[in-house]
Amino acid sequence: MLHLILADSELERMPPEIAVDKAIRWSARRRGRKPTELILDSSFHYRAMRRLPGKERRGRPDIVHLCLLLALDSPLNLEGLLRTYVHTREDRVITVDPSTNLPRAYRRFEGLMEQLFMTGEVPPERPLLRLEESSLAKLIKRIGPRKTIALSEKGERKGLDELFEGVSVRDEVCTIVGGFPHGEFISDVEELADEIVSIYEKPLTAPAVLIRVISSYERRFGVV
Amino acid sequence: MLHLILADSELERMPPEIAVDKAIRWSARRRGRKPTELILDSSFHYRAMRRLPGKERRGRPDIVHLCLLLALDSPLNLEGLLRTYVHTREDRVITVDPSTNLPRAYRRFEGLMEQLFMTGEVPPERPLLRLEESSLAKLIKRIGPRKTIALSEKGERKGLDELFEGVSVRDEVCTIVGGFPHGEFISDVEELADEIVSIYEKPLTAPAVLIRVISSYERRFGVV
Repeated sequence: MLHLILADSELERMPPEIAVDKAIRWSARRRGRKPTELILDSSFHYRAMRRLPGKERRGRPDIVHLCLLLALDSPLNLEGLLRTYVHTREDRVITVDPSTNLPRAYRRFEGLMEQLFMTGEVPPERPLLRLEESSLAKLIKRIGPRKTIALSEKGERKGLDELFEGVSVRDEVCTIVGGFPHGEFISDVEELADEIVSIYEKPLTAPAVLIRVISSYERRFGVV
Repeated sequence: MLHLILADSELERMPPEIAVDKAIRWSARRRGRKPTELILDSSFHYRAMRRLPGKERRGRPDIVHLCLLLALDSPLNLEGLLRTYVHTREDRVITVDPSTNLPRAYRRFEGLMEQLFMTGEVPPERPLLRLEESSLAKLIKRIGPRKTIALSEKGERKGLDELFEGVSVRDEVCTIVGGFPHGEFISDVEELADEIVSIYEKPLTAPAVLIRVISSYERRFGVV
């Protein structure tokens, strides 16, 4: 089984220090939410975000959306061999049920995330996404993997075919991919991972890394 | 070189027969466009689409968006070994410059597509996307590939590693992936392709197929 963690993801609610911004209050009113109930999105809130520390990487729910669509639609997931988690910069963890049929339209995904951060689970009738407070260390402890591999530009260069060498399909293997646009992990990944691996000499986007990790595991075990 | 065509993609402008719908006219006014200048999107226009033939598959610019992001961000594209094209249900072709930095926010992508369908090329200062009238047959003729492979659930089952067997990196190879949510190709793919291949026994989404084709080519030639 492959456990895939999108770590330090830039998914969070509107930070209180910028929730007083006029444009933010206006857009909250239009959506029928309190400003602090909105999900921070740099493509809409860039003006208010000028004052925010780490503004050049924060507010990227689109990365989470794209990564979850790719993970859930993968043959590996269809075969029941993938478990997917989103860990955020504020140490929250979303556990994603493999049968989740995620909204493909970004606006609907955004609405779903607002609801998830308000109620802790969605959809109400049969919860498929659950949100809880948890550090990356705590999540990995809960999974209890035989091996944990983090993907990072700064890791040891390896071919994709070597990534899961020596791993059996019955092993619980955990892979960590950064859910942020650039920069470093915030969590102490060096401490938590058994191996840090780089699959390409240039920086890659989170979805580009994630899908190659899944695809590599699929090939290793003859799924595709 | 790998030429990747997203074929019969469900990307089109608002069909005139539903452009008179009240909600459509309203949303056009809000965007400062004529109703027929909007891009059809089933997640926003589903009510008006009730009357549209083929309504269960049309209006999916989100598929094009996701596929283009994945193609452009791939190591294969970064190495200059990928050319990407979008062919639409109405026989238009978008030729995508490999250096295109596509908007990640769906709303901005939608705006870009509106502009592209109005002017034939975007962005104005240095066109990276060009739109023209062309059938799939004409596009393939223009590429002049040594081999054309179409991916389809109905094709001959092959492993991903066999997909580019016997192909050299100097060959122009063309792969066709359907840019629609379900159903069959509209274009006569059986006539146009040398091979029709299925990579998995169950239906897969367009992005799931496309990224595995790219990743298979990358591995074949040691890019990743």
